[in-house]
Amino acid sequence: MKKGIAASKGYAIGKVLIKEVNEVKVEERKIEDIQSEKDRFKKSLDASRDQLTKIKEKAEKEMGADKAAVFESHMMLLDDPEFAGAVDIAIENDKINAEKALENVSTMYAGIFEAMEDEYMRERGADVKDVSKRILANLAGKISADSEEMEANTIIVAHDLTPSDTAQLDKSKVIAFLTNIGGRTSHSAIMARTLEIPAVVGLNDITTSVKNGDTVVVDGNEGTVIINPDDNTVKEYEAKIEAYEKEKGELKKLISVKTVTKAGKRVEVAGNIGKPQDVHQVLENGGDAIGLFRTEFLYMDRNDMPTEEEQFDAYKYAVEKMEGRSVVIRTLDIGGDKKLPYLPLPEEMNPFLGYRAIRLCLDRKDIFKVQLRALLRASAFGNLKIMFPMIASLEEFLQAKKVLNECMEELKEEGKAFNAELETGIMVEIPAAAVCADELAKHVDFFSIGTNDLIQYTLAADRMNEKISYLYNPMHPAVLKLIKMTIEAAHKEGKWCGMCGEMAGDEKAIPTLVEYGLDEFSMSASSILKAKQLIMEN
Amino acid sequence: MKKGIAASKGYAIGKVLIKEVNEVKVEERKIEDIQSEKDRFKKSLDASRDQLTKIKEKAEKEMGADKAAVFESHMMLLDDPEFAGAVDIAIENDKINAEKALENVSTMYAGIFEAMEDEYMRERGADVKDVSKRILANLAGKISADSEEMEANTIIVAHDLTPSDTAQLDKSKVIAFLTNIGGRTSHSAIMARTLEIPAVVGLNDITTSVKNGDTVVVDGNEGTVIINPDDNTVKEYEAKIEAYEKEKGELKKLISVKTVTKAGKRVEVAGNIGKPQDVHQVLENGGDAIGLFRTEFLYMDRNDMPTEEEQFDAYKYAVEKMEGRSVVIRTLDIGGDKKLPYLPLPEEMNPFLGYRAIRLCLDRKDIFKVQLRALLRASAFGNLKIMFPMIASLEEFLQAKKVLNECMEELKEEGKAFNAELETGIMVEIPAAAVCADELAKHVDFFSIGTNDLIQYTLAADRMNEKISYLYNPMHPAVLKLIKMTIEAAHKEGKWCGMCGEMAGDEKAIPTLVEYGLDEFSMSASSILKAKQLIMEN
Repeated sequence: MKKGIAASKGYAIGKVLIKEVNEVKVEERKIEDIQSEKDRFKKSLDASRDQLTKIKEKAEKEMGADKAAVFESHMMLLDDPEFAGAVDIAIENDKINAEKALENVSTMYAGIFEAMEDEYMRERGADVKDVSKRILANLAGKISADSEEMEANTIIVAHDLTPSDTAQLDKSKVIAFLTNIGGRTSHSAIMARTLEIPAVVGLNDITTSVKNGDTVVVDGNEGTVIINPDDNTVKEYEAKIEAYEKEKGELKKLISVKTVTKAGKRVEVAGNIGKPQDVHQVLENGGDAIGLFRTEFLYMDRNDMPTEEEQFDAYKYAVEKMEGRSVVIRTLDIGGDKKLPYLPLPEEMNPFLGYRAIRLCLDRKDIFKVQLRALLRASAFGNLKIMFPMIASLEEFLQAKKVLNECMEELKEEGKAFNAELETGIMVEIPAAAVCADELAKHVDFFSIGTNDLIQYTLAADRMNEKISYLYNPMHPAVLKLIKMTIEAAHKEGKWCGMCGEMAGDEKAIPTLVEYGLDEFSMSASSILKAKQLIMEN
Repeated sequence: MKKGIAASKGYAIGKVLIKEVNEVKVEERKIEDIQSEKDRFKKSLDASRDQLTKIKEKAEKEMGADKAAVFESHMMLLDDPEFAGAVDIAIENDKINAEKALENVSTMYAGIFEAMEDEYMRERGADVKDVSKRILANLAGKISADSEEMEANTIIVAHDLTPSDTAQLDKSKVIAFLTNIGGRTSHSAIMARTLEIPAVVGLNDITTSVKNGDTVVVDGNEGTVIINPDDNTVKEYEAKIEAYEKEKGELKKLISVKTVTKAGKRVEVAGNIGKPQDVHQVLENGGDAIGLFRTEFLYMDRNDMPTEEEQFDAYKYAVEKMEGRSVVIRTLDIGGDKKLPYLPLPEEMNPFLGYRAIRLCLDRKDIFKVQLRALLRASAFGNLKIMFPMIASLEEFLQAKKVLNECMEELKEEGKAFNAELETGIMVEIPAAAVCADELAKHVDFFSIGTNDLIQYTLAADRMNEKISYLYNPMHPAVLKLIKMTIEAAHKEGKWCGMCGEMAGDEKAIPTLVEYGLDEFSMSASSILKAKQLIMEN
């Protein structure tokens, strides 16, 4: 049995198909005719763009617009004049072939992304590599067939799966993925969860541990793989698959059910999203609302600040599609480890304790007001609520409200519509906010507990730091006490309290949170149904 | 009026004496005779050592052994074979004169120290420069006279004052220091506080703003300097000097007074120390106890771990000199930004939320046990208490106690004496510890609230980070609430609660801390008398 990282739930028994790595080996050649080399590069970009357009269309049909969006960012790289320009310059200055120039530039680009602490940004490094591989293949005139012949019940085994690899698989025949590398948020993991097939990643050497045609059992819940299992194991897993399918069926029945605890309390189960299009997955999974719309993604993967109009469109899309259901939108939480290429920030010794989120926004009202205006205007089209992150004191909340009021005044003068009664709340993710929740509750309309940060600060333990991640424990009595204090403080003032950290979807935590009287649980779309079931049992 | 950093309290009116910078300008020369150049360097080292020995003796007499210790570290650098060896190698490889070789090596050495985040280590960079200047002067055959002629009421104005500059001043005539650079913990600041004369540092351009013989008023409380004051200003400051001297006299009367609050509660006012010899200053300032002995300094400025014997001697010295008064010794708080040259630690993204203090000690029992054995053995000689830093959960405290018990068993078997009843407590500096103080109080003998870290974590604000240091507020209601909870939890279990962060000596905080019932206030020696006075008024 091999143990990896459980990336997508479920069980599968099937036959191995090893996806070979089609590494195009790059050799450096000195060239004479610079212009013709640049032309070759240009042609390979065009070919790549055509291929990606087709792949994107296929992905949109099979996996939805949100998952296909990754190919848009691939195409953006193709169109990025800085990227293509850097390759041209390398061809010209170093007088080298397009392949080597591309490799140099893309290694540098990928390196910049991979050195970032933010997992989302790190994954962008993989995108750069994926696109570059495609361009290289086009330069070499070798482009792999767009679809491979495979049998039913195929389990794909690969070193890593790029988004384009995944998009080109025959979804009717692939029943699981196994990869050597990757983490829970790598593309292959996300794709597997979207396709609702089990996946285990980070297996180190699975490509050399199995051969084509081997039978393997994949346990996506435990993150384990059994190679050439005996009959008993196969029987055991067949039973698990049956039970799992049955449970999935049961859960599906909960999609339109309103969640009520045993004590008769109506609870909202909501989704956390990063892009407007993600609302569809939340609705498909029976989400009552959007409990956290992280707006950072609107600011990433681009070379300038998103305009008020661009933001307005994104927020409007989300609230309209949610048709009157609550959409809690968090204002920009950038800074710390999340950096923007066009917003230079000071280097910090402890970015988690630094200049970020509301601290940055109150300091940079020019940036803040653009977002608040867009949010206010979108509030005319649905049930939009504004949430401020990283609030450490009442003063910060009052300052943020003041800026919001300024924006309201401006819009009023401009004759632009907004909901003047929209709710404003805060993330409770800094210990000080939880400790002073009684005071804050008098001023806000709601709280949403951000457990990821709250746990980190309360225990003074960076959860990304492997040496001490053992300390990061959502069920630590101090964490539970602060959560309880926060919920009670909200209720005392007649306000509602939600939670949008990972803990809200944690099966071990849900019974306690129900007991404390949490009003809203917000989590990734795929956890909603299970959470509904658990809440109703408690 | 010029504004700088208030580095040492008090007022002075006197005449300026500008201390010229004796920069020896280094020019690179190619040399032929490598051996004779190495000999020149060796001779200059010997001369420097002789001079420093004398300066150290003078400093010991005038400022005490602890302050003279800096010259020992200067001499250590002279004797460091790596340092001298690097210069020899530079002479040999680059065939350059000793002056240039020394400059290259010392710039590199100083740079390494100055890049460190820890303020204490950064100051070591200044030491390297100070020693190098001396060696250079000796190479040039120019060594400044060991003492300068000066008038009474002299105010020294300098770009910066090195320890050797300061040690060579005529203490009977110098009544204040003013420098362009430096911070509150620079050597000149520390020296000024030891000599109890006012000092303002970080004035940027004071050396060019005044000329020799100018009259200046120095306000070491506000950090201001008035150049050539008018008569009214002089009168105003003469009155301030008189009032200040009177108050100092009043405070001196409190040295042997037991501190009792208005409500009749006996309170301990203790000192924070970094070296065993610092106990003397605490006693001279009327300290009842040592509330925090930071043991990191025993581990710094050396190339290997201190042995059990070395540590035992240090702890024994402190407890013996304190003659039965309480000495709370904190176990090693290394890691994070405090690094040891001989203990490689992983690079961390957020060192303040990382692998440090008790986390490191519980992981590295080999290091931890050496210290615990030394502490236990020293406990036979006085009132020694052990305090564990960075405790986030009860489990960590119980684990630490288990290791301590193992050490007790070992010592028992070896027939070595220790106090089996010694008190063990924890620093309350992580929000989780304050929130769970009720549970922890059942197990510990005492708490000591470490406000510097507690504030930082509670507000998620790195106080070293200028962009957000405005958030760092000891009087934030969340901080006060956690302090109150901690004190009450201790008292409920019949345990005592102290405080050893900067807040304990903060005049604005003391009334509130007295009201909360804090049992012990521990601070730098120079704040003790003022704190005693304030506590007795509350």
